[in-house]
Amino acid sequence: MNITTEGIRKQNLAVDDADAIEHLLRTSRVGYLGLVDGDEPYVVPLNFIWHREAIYVHGAQYGRKASLMSQSPKAAFTIAHEIGTITHPVPAKTDTAYLTAMVFGRISMVEDLNEATSALEAMLCKYVPGYYDSPLHSGHVQSYVSGAGSHVAVYRLQPERITAKENPEDMSVMFYPGRTRTADVQRGRR
Amino acid sequence: MNITTEGIRKQNLAVDDADAIEHLLRTSRVGYLGLVDGDEPYVVPLNFIWHREAIYVHGAQYGRKASLMSQSPKAAFTIAHEIGTITHPVPAKTDTAYLTAMVFGRISMVEDLNEATSALEAMLCKYVPGYYDSPLHSGHVQSYVSGAGSHVAVYRLQPERITAKENPEDMSVMFYPGRTRTADVQRGRR
Repeated sequence: MNITTEGIRKQNLAVDDADAIEHLLRTSRVGYLGLVDGDEPYVVPLNFIWHREAIYVHGAQYGRKASLMSQSPKAAFTIAHEIGTITHPVPAKTDTAYLTAMVFGRISMVEDLNEATSALEAMLCKYVPGYYDSPLHSGHVQSYVSGAGSHVAVYRLQPERITAKENPEDMSVMFYPGRTRTADVQRGRR
Repeated sequence: MNITTEGIRKQNLAVDDADAIEHLLRTSRVGYLGLVDGDEPYVVPLNFIWHREAIYVHGAQYGRKASLMSQSPKAAFTIAHEIGTITHPVPAKTDTAYLTAMVFGRISMVEDLNEATSALEAMLCKYVPGYYDSPLHSGHVQSYVSGAGSHVAVYRLQPERITAKENPEDMSVMFYPGRTRTADVQRGRR
């Protein structure tokens, strides 16, 4: 995993622990794919799988996302886990506890049938674990990715660099409904 | 709300109900801001508030996000609510139920103190409702947004167009742990 902490302004929040990043990549259900359309950004939420050190998604062979990818393959893929809100008696110091990772690289359609099958099998294991009693057949994938009227494709974002940031929670001061600054101050909590 | 369904390939999934979109904009805790850095996209997860028909976020006055915004103010802001996975006996027809909205427009730093105060007050109401017993003072915001050593700013994304898509859930076929295709077929569910 090509993790870098370069370019992160607050270095104290930078994460370079590959296991922490892999946990986030494997447990997050939705990632946000950024593409460029001329001088305008485009961000689309997608289910995905972290598989063989790459991000795989699937989607239409046609449509805005597919045409942007072929015009401009540079992609960003961002996932975040929001843990909660950190309270503070000073309003401006209210903060969020989170873990986030950004994967930068190039995205392209997967042409190899075995690779597409393996990625889709991994996606099924992630989103419908145990639902099917037999593994995915490449023949099914072939009809799926290239069958007439199907027009669905698998895409691979090959990471060139990954950055991650974490603002850890402090369980003693996390917000919950009913928590008030007045009570926190009275009991000497803050 | 300048909602458009243009450019959405699957028109049957397009949403133009302003109330549904507003509900998503007001209840989602994290949105994904897309910016353009030359020919490379950048996507950052942010807490935000939908306020006065615009997206407000806050963040550092410096750093990559801030410098990108001033170079290239065109922005996309995407939020999604993933409802769950829709099972199907045919693996390729496994699908996701979701509601998503994309806000496109220009983002810029809020210079007006009253506007910044009002947006931050609305953010506090969203993320720490009831925590403070008095409303936010503009004096506090002034020291917050322009105080020495603070360097924090409020940004407004002024929507030029909003698109939304929904793939509704079908509660009879949503995946849950332990659900299997074999059992679904046996009881004639699929």
